[in-house]
Amino acid sequence: VMTMMCGSCANEHALKLVFGWYRHKQRGGHDQFSQEEIDSCLQNKAPGSPPLTILSFQGAFHGRTFGSLVCTSSKYIQKIDIPSIDWPRARFPAYKYPLEENLRENQQEDDKCLAEVEELIEKYNKNGKPVAGIITEPIQAEGGDNQASPEFFRRLQKIAKEKGAALLMDEVQTGGGATGKFWCHEHFDLESPPDIVTFSKKMIIGGFYHSTDIMPKIPYRVLNTWMGDPGRLLLLEAVLKVLKRDNLLSLVRESGAVLMEGLQQLQAQHPTLLSALRGRGTFISVNCPSAKVRDNVVTRLKMKGIHCGGCGEQGIRFRPALTFQPHHAHIVLDRFQQVLRELSS
Amino acid sequence: VMTMMCGSCANEHALKLVFGWYRHKQRGGHDQFSQEEIDSCLQNKAPGSPPLTILSFQGAFHGRTFGSLVCTSSKYIQKIDIPSIDWPRARFPAYKYPLEENLRENQQEDDKCLAEVEELIEKYNKNGKPVAGIITEPIQAEGGDNQASPEFFRRLQKIAKEKGAALLMDEVQTGGGATGKFWCHEHFDLESPPDIVTFSKKMIIGGFYHSTDIMPKIPYRVLNTWMGDPGRLLLLEAVLKVLKRDNLLSLVRESGAVLMEGLQQLQAQHPTLLSALRGRGTFISVNCPSAKVRDNVVTRLKMKGIHCGGCGEQGIRFRPALTFQPHHAHIVLDRFQQVLRELSS
Repeated sequence: VMTMMCGSCANEHALKLVFGWYRHKQRGGHDQFSQEEIDSCLQNKAPGSPPLTILSFQGAFHGRTFGSLVCTSSKYIQKIDIPSIDWPRARFPAYKYPLEENLRENQQEDDKCLAEVEELIEKYNKNGKPVAGIITEPIQAEGGDNQASPEFFRRLQKIAKEKGAALLMDEVQTGGGATGKFWCHEHFDLESPPDIVTFSKKMIIGGFYHSTDIMPKIPYRVLNTWMGDPGRLLLLEAVLKVLKRDNLLSLVRESGAVLMEGLQQLQAQHPTLLSALRGRGTFISVNCPSAKVRDNVVTRLKMKGIHCGGCGEQGIRFRPALTFQPHHAHIVLDRFQQVLRELSS
Repeated sequence: VMTMMCGSCANEHALKLVFGWYRHKQRGGHDQFSQEEIDSCLQNKAPGSPPLTILSFQGAFHGRTFGSLVCTSSKYIQKIDIPSIDWPRARFPAYKYPLEENLRENQQEDDKCLAEVEELIEKYNKNGKPVAGIITEPIQAEGGDNQASPEFFRRLQKIAKEKGAALLMDEVQTGGGATGKFWCHEHFDLESPPDIVTFSKKMIIGGFYHSTDIMPKIPYRVLNTWMGDPGRLLLLEAVLKVLKRDNLLSLVRESGAVLMEGLQQLQAQHPTLLSALRGRGTFISVNCPSAKVRDNVVTRLKMKGIHCGGCGEQGIRFRPALTFQPHHAHIVLDRFQQVLRELSS
């Protein structure tokens, strides 16, 4: 585990670990840098600054510092006017809902997106811009709570391994329990853990954990002044203690199930207003027909004391605290029903 | 003022402000983005992700996240194996010491470095990679406590203005009082303040302040989850209170003068061991003939209870706390003299 300052900082330094690991392999398993590597990196030139790339997904959000911003493509206002570089970007699955009625289409969607991942890696590898790693969120949160199937992620990991690229799972929004498991990727039953998992937000402190394989072999490669904040670690310790003591992961699953079931009923009652209900634990969202309707719903909910956020183009996202209980879910559902009736009348 | 997580984060977001400001000018003074800009930035392509650049200096250190690392070139271990981009880099003055005996050479050195700055900006502007800003430390700390004259910085600012580039002064190491002024660039008598000044370290929290001109015109362009840390602001408030109450800037100048004068005498007594003594306030350093001798001196000082650091290839740097008093300086000088005698005998 390395602690960092925030989620973006965690992703930046995790990517550096990936690049160092990839070059270590390329050099044949050692870090005895040549003089040419040493001199050229100080001039930002290859081979010291190699033209390695990271594959990310459309709709992803990984942060707002330069490197993580290259991997981000959820909202233009975060990126416009900032220089960037040519790193590969694949399409993330866009499922049809309800899932159980669209099994075949959604599996084909997985196939298409994963084929694009493979093609892009082959293309960039061939063009002298090797793909050292793949970065993805287990749920594209900022991009609209876009979910992909456990099978998608298992196949993605398989491709990463075959292509010699590291798999970085960005759990900045999803980590810490809101999906009903401590890490969202635990839902995917992956063959092995992701090579790196980054975190922040609910974890109080930014940082990442990683496989021993990806650990830098020589010191001073990943470092900054504060390397996180001990004070925040104390806060995290207290959070984790309460999370265990009060069985909050179990509570999240219970309250999430109540919220999900109620929203399913509301969606069935108001098919012109709600669609694509999806979620894990209390990490739930549902779409409106347009951004305008969505903003209207969010505002009306707020007037009734329910604070939801918008996500993506037309999504409403629920992000209750880990202490959210079934009776809170019933209050939310009651107010939500009132708003939907107001809009329908 | 915007507060950030750390020094690197401060530089990253300050650079984003510079890019936004530059594009605002290029568009003719507005931020009404075209659809092409909006669409292309999500693909990391121009015009939305424009090929703008930042000019930095050889030997600079601005941080270890991707964008600030592109501007960094002090130590290879911080950069090797990490992809980078082609941004211009000029030579920073390398003065001959003692300064008073090398006035003409050092002025010529300024001329050469500033001519290179102008040439690089013209070249990059002509090649479709416009230089939106210049980033520099007032003293290149990590790179070896490399100092440049006030005149160098005044002329650099003049060039920046002529070329329409913003001047970003990175005071992450120098800010907060150690140079005898609160900001080191106050020593330079600049015609106007730098466009952006970044800080961290002694300031307890990362962040930057900037001219009103460079303020983003629309919201949501520079943002992150925590935007600094209110707890750290409370610590900073206490630091500033003590700094004023105890006249610490005045103390830094007084103790710095004692330390500097004593080191001058030691340098005169041991010309084969010490050279290029330089500094402002207590932000002082002196060179040894080699890294090996330097490391030896630093280790021997540590054994005598004096903690100094190495900087650059062969420099020893003094970085006492702001509460360092003249009698502390005498203790340091006494132990330093003992070490030099040991090495001479």
